[in-house]
Amino acid sequence: MPKVDLDAIPQANRTGYPAPHGEVLAGRWYRRLGPHTGLTQLAPTHVVLKPGAWSSQRHWHDDEDEMLVMIAGEAVLIEDHHRTIVRPGDICTWPKGTGNGHHLINESEADCVFVAIGSGAASAGGYSDIDMMWRADGSYVHKDGRPYPNTGRPA
Amino acid sequence: MPKVDLDAIPQANRTGYPAPHGEVLAGRWYRRLGPHTGLTQLAPTHVVLKPGAWSSQRHWHDDEDEMLVMIAGEAVLIEDHHRTIVRPGDICTWPKGTGNGHHLINESEADCVFVAIGSGAASAGGYSDIDMMWRADGSYVHKDGRPYPNTGRPA
Repeated sequence: MPKVDLDAIPQANRTGYPAPHGEVLAGRWYRRLGPHTGLTQLAPTHVVLKPGAWSSQRHWHDDEDEMLVMIAGEAVLIEDHHRTIVRPGDICTWPKGTGNGHHLINESEADCVFVAIGSGAASAGGYSDIDMMWRADGSYVHKDGRPYPNTGRPA
Repeated sequence: MPKVDLDAIPQANRTGYPAPHGEVLAGRWYRRLGPHTGLTQLAPTHVVLKPGAWSSQRHWHDDEDEMLVMIAGEAVLIEDHHRTIVRPGDICTWPKGTGNGHHLINESEADCVFVAIGSGAASAGGYSDIDMMWRADGSYVHKDGRPYPNTGRPA
């Protein structure tokens, strides 16, 4: 059915980030919708951020567009030199290759819910605030190119 | 700014559908977000459906994935043999090439608001309920291939 049965898709809060960079994601509960819906040209993720949780480390994608539609609650969008409150009905867009990292932090007392959509294009990318970047194969490396051990795909 | 300033983007209710197929879209007010945001791999449209308005003629895309996030109000999703109420927070997904046409009709007394996202892939497509289809160049033709006069891009 085209209307996604969210309750039928398990939520996960795992991350491939090497320690300790994933600790801030413990309250990020997500469902990857692509595998359950048959979409191959769009890569949507349904996300619930518990109070205090981050959507990700602050990052950008070199070669993949991203966008977000806020559904419930509110979060703070953080970028270079900007903080922006994002509320239900708000839409955020991040064209590939900006080099200006973004993430959302739920600084409120209630859950917030959004859908993030990527194009699914293979892409490397960077993190603004930590000594990490990722390669198009999904591996994490330090900014000088040394690999992080035991990491998975970007999250 | 990544948070889209919707008020700065004019709404339109025009359609390229040949008459009379566009009459049901008079209460569909949309903003194409791609040109205003720099996205090239995602093609989002912010849509307000007034009471009674249709999102489109019932259609599918041969080669383009589509999805929708409902923000406010409610509408009925209509497909072959199914009617589904879509409410805020609901997500609908339409993988390319299903051949099962879909559209939303606002049968309520209030506006409904959603974001529809396509991949932007060039695609032909078909309409379920009328003698029309479109070609990948955006032109409308009858199902026997005869062109419609004076038409624009699919809507």
